[in-house]
Amino acid sequence: MRELHLSKVYQLLEPGPVVLLTTARKGRANVMTMSWHMMVEFEPPLVACVVSNANHSFAALRATGECVIALPARKLASTVVKVGNSSGRDTDKFAAFGLTAASASLVSPPLVRECFANLECKVADTRLLNKYNMFILEVLRAWIDPAQRNPKTIHHHGYGTFVVDGKTIRLKSRMR
Amino acid sequence: MRELHLSKVYQLLEPGPVVLLTTARKGRANVMTMSWHMMVEFEPPLVACVVSNANHSFAALRATGECVIALPARKLASTVVKVGNSSGRDTDKFAAFGLTAASASLVSPPLVRECFANLECKVADTRLLNKYNMFILEVLRAWIDPAQRNPKTIHHHGYGTFVVDGKTIRLKSRMR
Repeated sequence: MRELHLSKVYQLLEPGPVVLLTTARKGRANVMTMSWHMMVEFEPPLVACVVSNANHSFAALRATGECVIALPARKLASTVVKVGNSSGRDTDKFAAFGLTAASASLVSPPLVRECFANLECKVADTRLLNKYNMFILEVLRAWIDPAQRNPKTIHHHGYGTFVVDGKTIRLKSRMR
Repeated sequence: MRELHLSKVYQLLEPGPVVLLTTARKGRANVMTMSWHMMVEFEPPLVACVVSNANHSFAALRATGECVIALPARKLASTVVKVGNSSGRDTDKFAAFGLTAASASLVSPPLVRECFANLECKVADTRLLNKYNMFILEVLRAWIDPAQRNPKTIHHHGYGTFVVDGKTIRLKSRMR
């Protein structure tokens, strides 16, 4: 993994990929699938996300205030669905689905080695947590896997339907 | 335009497309380009979005509490960039860029006829507005253009680089 400058994190999340979110509590790591996230600030990068309080990860994230957002490429699509179809309550999802937990540098939850990017995050604001299950996260450190070039991400359209990144177009824009 | 059931709105926004956001104030409509949005609740659909307070649309949205989120397909990509590169302060963007404002049913801001979906929204929560420029919107009514079949959306990676939807994959999932 190579470190990515924090100013570039928005370019990973703004396009709306399905991501994995890892947590750790009482010495046990867990991972869930998530699509409800958005950028809130460029730098330091702030990310909002909604985690259902029915998810096992919700309690861990609230209690510890730490997580890792990991970005899977297309080849992990079936794994992403298996992760989403199961619960950390009764499954060690890393072992069950062949994901490798790697140590993060600033937080306890693990990076996911198979993902092309990993973002170490801490919870920065919980004002909308009770009403909407919304966390505001600050990205503390970002990593990318230089061996995965031009990874294609997947985008969830509901009920197991995903659209894979297609071709890239470049237009003259003044928008960052 | 055909009405779309509100329970399906998340399938449009969850994949992270670039969208247009229209506002209306003092009899004048405006439109901006936006990528920082996410679903917050399925039904009634709640959507969070961040609108920079440097944007002309910010003041209109705050003052009126109403907007329309319009979803452009790939053929509108260059229009979307022109909309993003200009300001409603000094430009009638509908006229300048060939967009057709159509009347909405429940809010004052217009639908964008060229877009394949339009979501009439009101502001539902402003608790994170001062700190993060974040609005929580409720989608009141949703419309799709039945003439645009399988529209491909675009996803912003920064600085005028967009990825167009590629192929669709279907996996067995228990996730909604």
